[in-house]
Amino acid sequence: MASRDGFTWTQDQGLKAGVPCIGAIQPPTNANSTTPQAFDVVVIGAGYCGLTAARDASLAGLKVLLLEGRDRIGGRSWSSNIGGYPFEMGGTWVYWGQPNVWREIMRYQMQDDLEISYDFSKGINQFLLANAEGIQRLSHDEEDAIMESGLRKLVNVDGEFGKRVVPFPHSGAFTAEALQYDTMSVAARLAEIKESLTPNERIGIEAFVLLCSGGTLVTTSFFEFLHWWALSEYSYDGCIRYLVKYKFREGQSSFAIRFFREALATGNLTYAFNSPVARVNDTREGVTVATRDGRTYKAAKAISAMPLNVLNAVEFNPPLIRGKKAAADIGHVNQCIKVHAEVRNADLRSYTGISYPHNGLYYALGDGTTPAGNTHIVAFGGQHNHFQPDEDIQVTKQALQGLVPMEIERIVFHNWSKDEFAKGAWFFSAPGLLSSHLGDMRAGQGNLFFASSDWALGWRSFIDGAIEEGTRAAVAVRAALQHPGLKPRLA
Amino acid sequence: MASRDGFTWTQDQGLKAGVPCIGAIQPPTNANSTTPQAFDVVVIGAGYCGLTAARDASLAGLKVLLLEGRDRIGGRSWSSNIGGYPFEMGGTWVYWGQPNVWREIMRYQMQDDLEISYDFSKGINQFLLANAEGIQRLSHDEEDAIMESGLRKLVNVDGEFGKRVVPFPHSGAFTAEALQYDTMSVAARLAEIKESLTPNERIGIEAFVLLCSGGTLVTTSFFEFLHWWALSEYSYDGCIRYLVKYKFREGQSSFAIRFFREALATGNLTYAFNSPVARVNDTREGVTVATRDGRTYKAAKAISAMPLNVLNAVEFNPPLIRGKKAAADIGHVNQCIKVHAEVRNADLRSYTGISYPHNGLYYALGDGTTPAGNTHIVAFGGQHNHFQPDEDIQVTKQALQGLVPMEIERIVFHNWSKDEFAKGAWFFSAPGLLSSHLGDMRAGQGNLFFASSDWALGWRSFIDGAIEEGTRAAVAVRAALQHPGLKPRLA
Repeated sequence: MASRDGFTWTQDQGLKAGVPCIGAIQPPTNANSTTPQAFDVVVIGAGYCGLTAARDASLAGLKVLLLEGRDRIGGRSWSSNIGGYPFEMGGTWVYWGQPNVWREIMRYQMQDDLEISYDFSKGINQFLLANAEGIQRLSHDEEDAIMESGLRKLVNVDGEFGKRVVPFPHSGAFTAEALQYDTMSVAARLAEIKESLTPNERIGIEAFVLLCSGGTLVTTSFFEFLHWWALSEYSYDGCIRYLVKYKFREGQSSFAIRFFREALATGNLTYAFNSPVARVNDTREGVTVATRDGRTYKAAKAISAMPLNVLNAVEFNPPLIRGKKAAADIGHVNQCIKVHAEVRNADLRSYTGISYPHNGLYYALGDGTTPAGNTHIVAFGGQHNHFQPDEDIQVTKQALQGLVPMEIERIVFHNWSKDEFAKGAWFFSAPGLLSSHLGDMRAGQGNLFFASSDWALGWRSFIDGAIEEGTRAAVAVRAALQHPGLKPRLA
Repeated sequence: MASRDGFTWTQDQGLKAGVPCIGAIQPPTNANSTTPQAFDVVVIGAGYCGLTAARDASLAGLKVLLLEGRDRIGGRSWSSNIGGYPFEMGGTWVYWGQPNVWREIMRYQMQDDLEISYDFSKGINQFLLANAEGIQRLSHDEEDAIMESGLRKLVNVDGEFGKRVVPFPHSGAFTAEALQYDTMSVAARLAEIKESLTPNERIGIEAFVLLCSGGTLVTTSFFEFLHWWALSEYSYDGCIRYLVKYKFREGQSSFAIRFFREALATGNLTYAFNSPVARVNDTREGVTVATRDGRTYKAAKAISAMPLNVLNAVEFNPPLIRGKKAAADIGHVNQCIKVHAEVRNADLRSYTGISYPHNGLYYALGDGTTPAGNTHIVAFGGQHNHFQPDEDIQVTKQALQGLVPMEIERIVFHNWSKDEFAKGAWFFSAPGLLSSHLGDMRAGQGNLFFASSDWALGWRSFIDGAIEEGTRAAVAVRAALQHPGLKPRLA
């Protein structure tokens, strides 16, 4: 199976759109003459959030319709197996401290299907720190020391490395200090501590923050970075464990497909891929959803599991509540560029590197060895020096070579910025968005429930947050259908 | 509502059995003339494991019977509110890195219902380290330094502080080294490193290991301690976060009751408390469960959610498979004594202490301030210097005074060793049990599924493990009922 999404480049084939994907669903719909005319709930979007909501609702005996604009499940997290090796096009890493995702891994008995991304036992075993002036070859211990000490200076606004400002990172009830830091950019925070940073610390933490946000230092909320830090146990070591340590040996789509198949096995799931939603009409009688190709579906309730950045592409009648509309108009700032390179340099397996602030891709690491014996390098850029990796492959190659010289055999990527169903990568907030609008983003209206990793309370932006939100939505829809008189408690 | 379980002592009232509990269920059964004559599944035991299994099966539309010997839910985790303050009789602390329990906390929107146990801002702010010769008054920083350095010496069998021996602590596939360390006791491991430990490190880590195991150093599997260590992120700091940091402001039973109420609201749950099971007969036609008072129930499947140490109290026909019977005959070793003292010494709020090896209770900390302004001290003992806290309250008081002098107003506890439905506290393995029998403990037989925190893969022994296992059992029962031809895949 293959998806229209994603790109590959090789010397022989050049740039090609579309890649293999086990999450591409065939046939694209199971609707037929026996399909219900009206559903209990329609779920819009088949990323992890929508998959979780659809699965939980199906398991609970509700008649569910799942609509997805793409030809595949997974949304912003999916993998493509090429030459027997999974390339992760979006969300990749999972950790046992991410409660929702790990609960599912155990539930699907996939705890032995993980592997550790980095491997410092083979090859150069170095951290290459490049700036416009040149390149330093450092040890991974030196890397850790630079990052830990720099990040501790960045977050230490309370003498407790963020623990006082964000004591309960899964709480939606922000402390007063947290609210204050949400209106501050990382750029502003850096200005406060600039005298205390070494040049290497400055490069290291700026690149690290941008790796997290995919924005610029000015468009990155300092609170949201503190939130990631708190979730990661308030340490750089924790960040590494939570953010880049464990991944699925067979790729993300091998995980996502479990949700889909389980929902399907209940007999309660109708689905239609290639079905972008154009309009959602909500009346006292229920919800009518119209797709762009003119089909309409009726349901008692609807769950929008679409990202913040594409909410405005759907017409809602009545319109989105004011605060939600305001949040959709602002959007999130993450325009991450994630590029995989399969390279002949076996010794780069143990490479990590930063190339900043001049380079198009500013963070990279050796992430695996392919069956052909090549090294897999994964590299990240974003709004800082943004480029479109599919528009000029020479620019993309140049950005890779600007990290570390490599002999490139293959390039694989998904251009999230030009993806009409995402308009960006994982959620990251500009200053002020969360403190002004998190409650609005989470609120339901009428028969509509809004669920997305983009406004999860815990691991917001992560697969974990998507599952958190899909779980919340399914519980809320069940409660609303059982007790139609009660207002949904979603805030 | 009140439970028969638990004890309180005050000067005025003396020792009394039975305490208030919101987890005591009235009426004790909802069975009536409309109750089904046969169920899809009977769940034996209403601890977190049984509650989770019963809830998930009820939500999935199965007709569920929940049988419980006690008058309350929660099993080895329950709380009693006395004077407006929750005393935790068993399992207490939760953490966001415990995936199953945290997923439920988020699902029930209880993320703001937690508080931090310790508070070093008020009072003596000291760690009192007592042995038979006398008492040292140390700072909490000194406490951390002793414990961290001692524990790192204990676990560092691989030069990586256990990371190589237990790289995936949620995996049931043990490394060869892990298997080897499961046949070693902590006493044997201590003998290897005894020259390298300072006297304070030795006292500290022995008391800490016994706090975890509730056994003796000889009866404590070194692997199982490594497993806790790995789950706690391979650090003492992690142990504190995972093991004793966050608890429910309103007590554990305020959490457990959510599972029960949600199951009940489906209309699919029949329950009977005060209903100890005497016999389980399994035939090709299904399961018949007989209670001690002579009632019998029929179901297609049964989930035993009873602890390992009481499996032998039930007659199984056909009998338990050989390996499971062997495990039940061996049992686990944890005979933890957990005693709460409400004391007039306000300055002990910030106390932590060890009194070892001479004292009956060897570990304690200030755990809260009661509405009356008293300090709540929680203290732990176990098989080392074991005593029965209900048999002679003077002995219990002496063991408390042996930690730190205190003016005791109230004592609250549950004697887990004399509890016929637990025969001990949380699971902890003697050397060899896990490597020989973990697979047997997890295996199903015929129409029977065996689920318990005692043989969870991840946070075995914890509420998290109970939910992990209840989740697994409900999934397996659903699959077995959907596909009756397939053997259950439970190993």
